[in-house]
Parts: sequence; structure tokens; C-alpha cells
Amino acid sequence: MHLFYTPDIDASHPMYFLNEEESKHCIRVLRLQVGDRVQLIDGRGGLYNAEISEAHPKRTILKINSVQTGFGKRNHYLHIAIAPTKNIERFEWFLEKATEIGIDEITPIICQRSERKEVKIERSAKIITSAIKQSLKAYHPILNAPIAFNQFVKQQFEGQKFIAHCMDESKTGLAAEVEKQSAYVILIGPEGDFSPAEVEGALQNGFKAITLGESRLRTETAALEACFEINFLNRK
Amino acid sequence: MHLFYTPDIDASHPMYFLNEEESKHCIRVLRLQVGDRVQLIDGRGGLYNAEISEAHPKRTILKINSVQTGFGKRNHYLHIAIAPTKNIERFEWFLEKATEIGIDEITPIICQRSERKEVKIERSAKIITSAIKQSLKAYHPILNAPIAFNQFVKQQFEGQKFIAHCMDESKTGLAAEVEKQSAYVILIGPEGDFSPAEVEGALQNGFKAITLGESRLRTETAALEACFEINFLNRK
Repeated sequence: MHLFYTPDIDASHPMYFLNEEESKHCIRVLRLQVGDRVQLIDGRGGLYNAEISEAHPKRTILKINSVQTGFGKRNHYLHIAIAPTKNIERFEWFLEKATEIGIDEITPIICQRSERKEVKIERSAKIITSAIKQSLKAYHPILNAPIAFNQFVKQQFEGQKFIAHCMDESKTGLAAEVEKQSAYVILIGPEGDFSPAEVEGALQNGFKAITLGESRLRTETAALEACFEINFLNRK
Repeated sequence: MHLFYTPDIDASHPMYFLNEEESKHCIRVLRLQVGDRVQLIDGRGGLYNAEISEAHPKRTILKINSVQTGFGKRNHYLHIAIAPTKNIERFEWFLEKATEIGIDEITPIICQRSERKEVKIERSAKIITSAIKQSLKAYHPILNAPIAFNQFVKQQFEGQKFIAHCMDESKTGLAAEVEKQSAYVILIGPEGDFSPAEVEGALQNGFKAITLGESRLRTETAALEACFEINFLNRK
């Protein structure tokens, strides 16, 4: 069934008007007609079953038949702060995959050794949106604006805080550290890893050093490994 | 340090001659000189420390200083049989990521609902090779030629056999099924999932149905999830 992302929907209202772009897509591209059923997700856990009551190419009207709230609600909260990769496609690939597997919040962090200092947030957000539609996720992950590493680690966070650096030090894995059904913030560094000063700064701010296994992973692979592990460890 | 993939190297020989292409890359592109140190991997677990003894642009001679065998040898054997994705980039992305995380053998399987019936094996093998160099893996995963699903499931395999289909049936996760430090074959279906007949055929041939979690995953993401889980469950 066709799915639309409608963050502005009001659950208490029996009707919803698709905007001009979505209406055009719905009627001209998908060629849907009155009575055809569609699904809507609001990005806040709401999954709506609806049908087309007026097939207008600029102002399609949908009748809401049922609403399910908290659809696919997860039992933990995962926030990954990752240094955007030099090749932006690798970062965008991470956004898509992490959204499929399960993530709540992503913050691009600019580190001392970051080769990339900026991210097109609108473009990245669109990738996340298409991923939630593809994988039928009713919650839209939050994508924050890029922030300097040193500022980020000084912020207050709930739950557990980890840094996955590559320096030779004794580190434990998430399996040994994670308190289940909690909130987690995990720092993933750039191609050249975090600087020793950054690692020190993170530890001083209460982040615990962890290892993601023996393999030498690219930045985006390490971030996805962390995402897999947290979801896997919290699986019922 | 610069790394070269040299599958034809003879561990008993103190010298190695880079082929014309690698020699050109080594001398003209990397501009390495006599005495510069490089590393070689043979794809069979051998990691070699060498230095340039003759910087010839067509026939560079390397002096082998030390050899380490069984480098990064893993404690299990993972064979993933995956239906190549319609968009080949997604399949190639899986090859790169699975190689980084850890995989031993990959077989493209052509299923009833496969939109793609062929794979450029040479091109795919190159992607795996660059991934082992990037992630310093001394073992080169085996990439088999595409084979029809029905033929594949009739073959003999050592260890445990799983099929990750999406049909509504009671399935357990790998965490409950996996015998550690074993060999595993895992079947991952195409965009439209396996057909009921294919699932039945796999079960009849001793494959066990498993779930990879609650999320609706793309083909390449499901295959990588399986790769993550097997490696994670076998982590020391």
C-alpha cells in the first residue's frame, strides 16, 4: 500500500489534505482514485489508515479510517554522534541503514581530524524520511545540525555515554556495558579517528571507551555496527 | 603503510615481483622508493612485511622481511547466499561492508522473484579485494558464481543452515539458534522475499527459518544484519 509522511497531521481530525506536491504525486504519478486506500505516518509513532475521498491533483482529501499510535515503539533510545565522512555518500548510506535498523537521534560532530566540516541537513533529512517510508517506521529519527565535538561532549545526556575510539587501550564491548532498555549516546570518529585530546575530553565528560570488535571499520560501518549492537542487545 | 594484495605469493620465497600494474602503481603513483616498507596480503591468511629492493616501474622487486600466517583468523565460517539486488550498488555495498565486518563466502542466488538474474563477478570481486585492503584482512572472502536457488539449497554444507524469510510464521532469532564457533549458511531473499515454494524447499533441505528482528529490512540490510549477528555472537 502507498505510504505518505504527514508530520503535520492532526490525529483528532477525520480528514487530511495532502499538500500540493503529495497530491500531484498521489493523483498524477500513482494515479490513485477515490476509495483507494493509503497509509500515513506522522513521524511521532502514529500510523494512519486512510482512503482517498477527493482525488484532487493539487489538494487531495483523505478520509482517516483508523489511527494506531506508538506504532513500532522501541524499548530504548539511541543517539549516535558521528563525524560526517569525507565522501558524503557513506554518511548518507549510514543514515538510511541506521533508520532501517532503528535509531532515534543523529548528530553530526565536527572533530579535529574531520575532513568534512559541513552537512546538507535538508538533503540528509530527506534520506531519513524515504528510509522510514520504505521500512514502515512511524517514528522519524531526529537529525541535529552539525556541532563541534568539544561542545557536544559537554552537553547533558540521559542514560549511558560511550566513545568508540581506535586507540590502543583496554576497552570493553557494549555487551558487557549496556544496561538494557536505557538511553545511549555513542560517539563515532572521523576517518583518522578522534585525537588523543578529544578522547581525553570525552572521558572527562563521563563517556566510557568501548570497542566494536576486532575489525578495522570505516567510520560509517563503525556507526552502523554500534546501531546493530544496541538494537540487538535490546531485542526482546 | 601501503598494502598490496598478492594472491600468487610464495611464502617460502624471500623475494616477490609486483606485476606490471602494481609496479606502475607502486612507483609512478605512490612514488615509493628503494627501502620503503610495504605490506602484502595473500588472501589466505598471510600478512607479509616487505621493502622495495628494486623500484622498477614495470617489475618492482620486494624483499620479504617477515611473514605472519593465519592473520586475523576467525573462529567460525560464515557463508551468506543472497539474491542480488535490483540496484546492483546495494549488492556491492553489502560485499564491502560484509568484508569489513567478517564473512568467508558469498553466493549470489537467483530466486523466483529475483528482478536481477546476473552479477558481474569480476567487478564484485574487485570490490571485495579493495575492502580487504582497506580493512587489513588477510583472508579474501570467496565469491561464487550465481546459482539458482533450488540448486543451491540441495547442496551439502557443513554446520548450521538458516533461511531468513519474511513470511508470517513463528521464527526464532540467531541468538537462540547459533552454536558458537561453527559454520553457517544463511539464505537472504530478493526484494519480494522468497516464494512459499522456495521457503518450503529450503525447510525440506534442512534449513531453519529465522528472524532478523522486527524491522522491515532491505535485502542488503538483512544480509548485513545476519553478518553482524553471526560475528557478534561469536565474539570472544
